[in-house]
Amino acid sequence: MKNISILGATGSIGTQTLDVIRNSDGKINLIGITANSSVDKIKEIIGEFEPKYVAMMDENSSKIIEEFCNKEYPNIQVFSGIDGLVKIATLEEIDTVVTSVVGMIGLKPTIAAIEAKKDIALANKETLVVAGELVMNKAKKNNVKILPVDSEHSAIFQSLSGYKNKDINKILLTASGGPFRGKTIEELKDVTVKEALKHPKWNMGQKISIDSATLMNKGLEVIEAHFLFDCDYDNIEVIVHPQSIIHSMVEYKDASVIAQLGSPDMRLPIQYALNYPERKGMIAKPVNFYELGALTFEKPDLETFKCLRFAYEAGKIGGLAPTILNGANEEAVALLLKEKIKFLQIAEIIEECMSVFKENYYDELTLDNIIELDKKVREYIRTKWELGVK
Amino acid sequence: MKNISILGATGSIGTQTLDVIRNSDGKINLIGITANSSVDKIKEIIGEFEPKYVAMMDENSSKIIEEFCNKEYPNIQVFSGIDGLVKIATLEEIDTVVTSVVGMIGLKPTIAAIEAKKDIALANKETLVVAGELVMNKAKKNNVKILPVDSEHSAIFQSLSGYKNKDINKILLTASGGPFRGKTIEELKDVTVKEALKHPKWNMGQKISIDSATLMNKGLEVIEAHFLFDCDYDNIEVIVHPQSIIHSMVEYKDASVIAQLGSPDMRLPIQYALNYPERKGMIAKPVNFYELGALTFEKPDLETFKCLRFAYEAGKIGGLAPTILNGANEEAVALLLKEKIKFLQIAEIIEECMSVFKENYYDELTLDNIIELDKKVREYIRTKWELGVK
Repeated sequence: MKNISILGATGSIGTQTLDVIRNSDGKINLIGITANSSVDKIKEIIGEFEPKYVAMMDENSSKIIEEFCNKEYPNIQVFSGIDGLVKIATLEEIDTVVTSVVGMIGLKPTIAAIEAKKDIALANKETLVVAGELVMNKAKKNNVKILPVDSEHSAIFQSLSGYKNKDINKILLTASGGPFRGKTIEELKDVTVKEALKHPKWNMGQKISIDSATLMNKGLEVIEAHFLFDCDYDNIEVIVHPQSIIHSMVEYKDASVIAQLGSPDMRLPIQYALNYPERKGMIAKPVNFYELGALTFEKPDLETFKCLRFAYEAGKIGGLAPTILNGANEEAVALLLKEKIKFLQIAEIIEECMSVFKENYYDELTLDNIIELDKKVREYIRTKWELGVK
Repeated sequence: MKNISILGATGSIGTQTLDVIRNSDGKINLIGITANSSVDKIKEIIGEFEPKYVAMMDENSSKIIEEFCNKEYPNIQVFSGIDGLVKIATLEEIDTVVTSVVGMIGLKPTIAAIEAKKDIALANKETLVVAGELVMNKAKKNNVKILPVDSEHSAIFQSLSGYKNKDINKILLTASGGPFRGKTIEELKDVTVKEALKHPKWNMGQKISIDSATLMNKGLEVIEAHFLFDCDYDNIEVIVHPQSIIHSMVEYKDASVIAQLGSPDMRLPIQYALNYPERKGMIAKPVNFYELGALTFEKPDLETFKCLRFAYEAGKIGGLAPTILNGANEEAVALLLKEKIKFLQIAEIIEECMSVFKENYYDELTLDNIIELDKKVREYIRTKWELGVK
């Protein structure tokens, strides 16, 4: 029996985590959940799973859920805001926190959970991107497992099972290439948000879908892999594999490659993380090799998809550079979703921020400095682009 | 430091094992070698490695080598015949025996080596095919490791690292399909030995090249996998993968697939077996995914390539059925190589023998019975086909 909390229970990964719980024969017990403001979805989850604790990021939504619980589920405690998320992440009763919120917001609760000695099923890649060193050190100190939920990192983790990190030659991180694979800069000038959101292989939330279209998602994953598997950036290679069947690979020093394959179904890595080191029964469709067609591989185009290049650069610079990269990206994606900027401007904004804030690269690496710099970067972008002060 | 003997040092696997030793920085020490009758090649190996013990299967060749050693290497002891092979396989000084002889001849020395508590780097698949149960039981009793050298079984072994057998759903054994993939029975009627020997991906000995053309090689590997990994025949699936980059895969019960990939270079699995659980430096070219083209997968054609079907059937019957299958196949392949029969007759001969000797299927499973039945099957074939008594 494993007791868990889900941060971001109504999002894409959160919803699929609920499916994993349904498939667990009662072996996984949902104790705490959080959401931003999806009141109706949270009510549904409460109805089905009756967790003991709920937190809503949005103050108003929290009030609605509190009233609802007072009437229908008087034993459920309701919290709000970032403190509410931290509360749900550190509940005495739980073993593991699934961090499936999107963006920097996951950072504080994840660190609090590690300090409370909870294992982390990590779907919030931004946490490792901005604070990889802090998080991994804290995890080691507290003897806490960081179990990757990203399909790529789960694949690497599975491909490493039974082997030693010292035997790794390279991590081969596969990428579908997103909806704009093969396109030129010229062709990307006037793409719409709708086109950018239309991922060919994975059904995901909006932020990560845009990140997949710019290849920033892969860039964040490169940084994530660096911290999770203690691997130099020069030994992390992105390979475009449009079919998304090989979810990533590890090349060992003898040139043997171990890969993990599966249907593109996030419930598989979620289930693996929540049951590790056990494997549970089938939740995803098995791969039908005869119906696959061909598996192909390409080099990523770093000239057109500059975000991936920027991520490598920020990762190699280290320090707070990934915080600038990530903050600029989160804010630029938000602007794109509001149709305030065009697709290619995401990369331009990131490039500008990396330059504007370069004197902050090597500020002391503390949680406070990360949060403060993130805020500064966002304010800079909002002032310049959203408010139209160009 | 590991001390080893190689049974079949002049063959394809033997020669590549020497390369692995050359690449071992002096960590692998060659103590004993055997060959059938390749006198010149053995002299070369003696000159380079100066092993302490040599055995030649062929009596005459043994005399030549003995004279040679008396003159040039008086400290080397020379043996002959099957007793000589057993001697080399059980030397006090060695830790591991590489069994790279081809065919049933490997059986006695392998069993003797296990009884002498030597680990086995197994390249002689016929041993497991005819005596899988005996061999695996003896290995367990003597706490001896059977380390697969076949590229497919090494791939499965590597894909199983860190996981439990109980979590296996299926073994996915890949097959290149051989030189006649896609051909019809009609097209195979008049193929020549030379065409059958021309494998598209692997450079191998004659027996295994013919076995690859008939798909009997894959059939023998199915039986080998059954014993090595304790997996039901119904859970071993052959997938034709013409590019020979994925060397085999394991599907776990959650539908996650772990695969091992690499260049088609046997030195990789040999090196893995000889250094297990360590990995050593690069001996094979790494896979260049960008130059691969596409990886494709097909169902094997069991109507045209009947040998694979017969192997499944013999495996499922169990008992001594695989001994009949293997003996008939070895003899039929020898006849083909002498151009006494045509390509498609291999399957016919095996089918006939499986029927003629069916009353022996469940004779008691002892080493003596295996050897005797094997002899009977071969005599039957020789009398009928080679001597022309049709």
